[in-house]
Amino acid sequence: MASTTTPTTTPATPRVINLNAGPAGLPAPVLAQAAAAVTSLGTTGVSILCISHRSAEFDAILDQANADLKSLLAVPAGYAVLWMQGGASTQFHAVAANLAARAAGLGAPAGWVADYLVTGTWSQKAAEAARAAGLPVNVVASGKLTNYDRIPAPTTWTRSANCLYTYLCTNETVHGVEFTDDLINAVADHGKASAAAGAWRPLVVADMSSNILSRPVDMSKFDIVFAGAQKNMGPAGVTVVIVRESLLAVKPDAAHRLPLMLDYATYHASNSLYNTPPVYAMYVTGLVLRWLVEHGGVTWIDALNADKAARVYGALEAADHFKPVVADGVRSRMNVVFRLVDDDGIPQDALDKKFVAFAAKRGLIGLPGHRSVGGCRASLYNAVTLDDVDELVSCIKEFDKLL
Amino acid sequence: MASTTTPTTTPATPRVINLNAGPAGLPAPVLAQAAAAVTSLGTTGVSILCISHRSAEFDAILDQANADLKSLLAVPAGYAVLWMQGGASTQFHAVAANLAARAAGLGAPAGWVADYLVTGTWSQKAAEAARAAGLPVNVVASGKLTNYDRIPAPTTWTRSANCLYTYLCTNETVHGVEFTDDLINAVADHGKASAAAGAWRPLVVADMSSNILSRPVDMSKFDIVFAGAQKNMGPAGVTVVIVRESLLAVKPDAAHRLPLMLDYATYHASNSLYNTPPVYAMYVTGLVLRWLVEHGGVTWIDALNADKAARVYGALEAADHFKPVVADGVRSRMNVVFRLVDDDGIPQDALDKKFVAFAAKRGLIGLPGHRSVGGCRASLYNAVTLDDVDELVSCIKEFDKLL
Repeated sequence: MASTTTPTTTPATPRVINLNAGPAGLPAPVLAQAAAAVTSLGTTGVSILCISHRSAEFDAILDQANADLKSLLAVPAGYAVLWMQGGASTQFHAVAANLAARAAGLGAPAGWVADYLVTGTWSQKAAEAARAAGLPVNVVASGKLTNYDRIPAPTTWTRSANCLYTYLCTNETVHGVEFTDDLINAVADHGKASAAAGAWRPLVVADMSSNILSRPVDMSKFDIVFAGAQKNMGPAGVTVVIVRESLLAVKPDAAHRLPLMLDYATYHASNSLYNTPPVYAMYVTGLVLRWLVEHGGVTWIDALNADKAARVYGALEAADHFKPVVADGVRSRMNVVFRLVDDDGIPQDALDKKFVAFAAKRGLIGLPGHRSVGGCRASLYNAVTLDDVDELVSCIKEFDKLL
Repeated sequence: MASTTTPTTTPATPRVINLNAGPAGLPAPVLAQAAAAVTSLGTTGVSILCISHRSAEFDAILDQANADLKSLLAVPAGYAVLWMQGGASTQFHAVAANLAARAAGLGAPAGWVADYLVTGTWSQKAAEAARAAGLPVNVVASGKLTNYDRIPAPTTWTRSANCLYTYLCTNETVHGVEFTDDLINAVADHGKASAAAGAWRPLVVADMSSNILSRPVDMSKFDIVFAGAQKNMGPAGVTVVIVRESLLAVKPDAAHRLPLMLDYATYHASNSLYNTPPVYAMYVTGLVLRWLVEHGGVTWIDALNADKAARVYGALEAADHFKPVVADGVRSRMNVVFRLVDDDGIPQDALDKKFVAFAAKRGLIGLPGHRSVGGCRASLYNAVTLDDVDELVSCIKEFDKLL
């Protein structure tokens, strides 16, 4: 195409631009390697789907993935990377069960409580899972009254005196709110002063499923971080858990009957190879991590993601019939939630649907909002390019003119 | 090659014959489709790794896989197929936890006990998991005294009077013993007579991870069957559970705190789509099921597997320096466990290793026994062809002559 001067004609079959909230798009060079390895992993003559998880080849894949993930996230010494199955929904229970079973051994205060920041669907489900597991749960703050369109200000948070851990979801995929660094600090720095004086330091647990590796984060502020791979890291079928090793040195209280396959220590002791792991999902995740390292890591993608989000939110703000749902300041860079509005600024389901159909004709898929909230959502994960974003912006502008 | 009359020359790079115990080989046409779909699922232009699990395309994949699995196994009406994550090790806990939480609701007798047939590594781990979950466990029979080289005769089994369920592993991947139809009947028919008179019928739970779809099985004899995909069904990363729906109509007792993502009802109510499932592992499993249907189903593969096993056990019996480990009658058709022996018939680790190396040079991989037991093991899962088996047989014969 370099020799033609008419690059703007619409091709007969437009390429697909994947704005799904997850499973999400993956970088094109990763997909090429991922396809080739299904035929043969390198020169082994064996498909990646058929190699043993106890082979030298898989050892190398796992070692590289662990090293790349630690390097990309600048994980400090003293943390373990675990590869588990079951997604974030399984982790909602696992974090609660692992910490409850170890609370006494860790020296948590008697009468401890688990503090939850409920800022959308996923943290709300996490709080429910902790309650269902029998933990006393305190909701520090809830965005429910405003349909989770903002994160309540830290000045309004009601924290427990005997907090075992504070839980947050750093980016709510459904509602499109994202914790800023300041908000993360407000969570994580709580209790640090009294801890310095010898008191218990409340632990910090974060679900980073939908914004991990999208921006720099100070991992030392967290004790447990987990993330399903299928947004920024790889295909569906594997979940990464990054956990402070000192927590795992404490044996779970037998009375809690923590199941072996939910106990983080099982994965830590076996380098995530207690049983057969999801080999292919881990392999492809490893390719994505490598791709990110080779392109400049989180610093590079952070700048790109800032640019992408600015272009989309800018287009929404500039348009007459589009409106971002989330309050400025905590708008997710990963999941842009918006509505179509009529001339009076009132959101209209029918317009949402028309825009989704209009965009689909241009090859943009994944734009309907989550089935629980409706509206529209454009997910701008790491694999979404500036060109993809510009196509979305064109769509917004053109559709806006039609109304 | 059809035009040459010298087809027996050894190629410079021998093809790889995958005899791994799992992840196992997959049929060549499946791998070709599985690779193509990573680039684009059909004509969608979207990689199977990146399509939404809520898309029409994935609905069709899941529907077809469910229909094929039910048809291949001749699953009677009243059973649900669930797709879960975490492998058999997660199911060891899940079956115990699901049934314990529902025992009262199902009308099980007070003071119920879980009966376990311990016939190798995997059923032993399953019994441990049930004990760890707090269930009273009775070991009906154990093969441990003879290093699990046989299945104790039903006449020696000590069954509980108040049995909630009997658990068996129909094929022990590590030790290479497989339940015959008669042995399955001995498990499943127990208590049927008294149940006909209105008493409680003990449930039957089976781990079929390593021989599902390898032979016809009367599914009506089981209440719960589970199987990790990575032997006969697909790649690692997904586990199939087939469960009698009437069990799921009973709500789990809240006091048991059954986690949402371990509760079979969560998967049943959502068609296994409560959260993001392992899309690719399910897709490839679906391809394997289709391949099996198109080749003639379980009847076809049963005959082939009988032939394959007969050739390998025959070669081992005929050789001077090879010896099957397992007693005749319960030798697994899937996992042939054997030793190399010296002139006095004494097993020799060094000879095992030499044979593994000899076979590896001919392209046969996966022959070392499980790291916990040593020796040799040839896994002859559904994707292993007669040609593959003949190559193994040649290897056995040639190596035997060298000794």
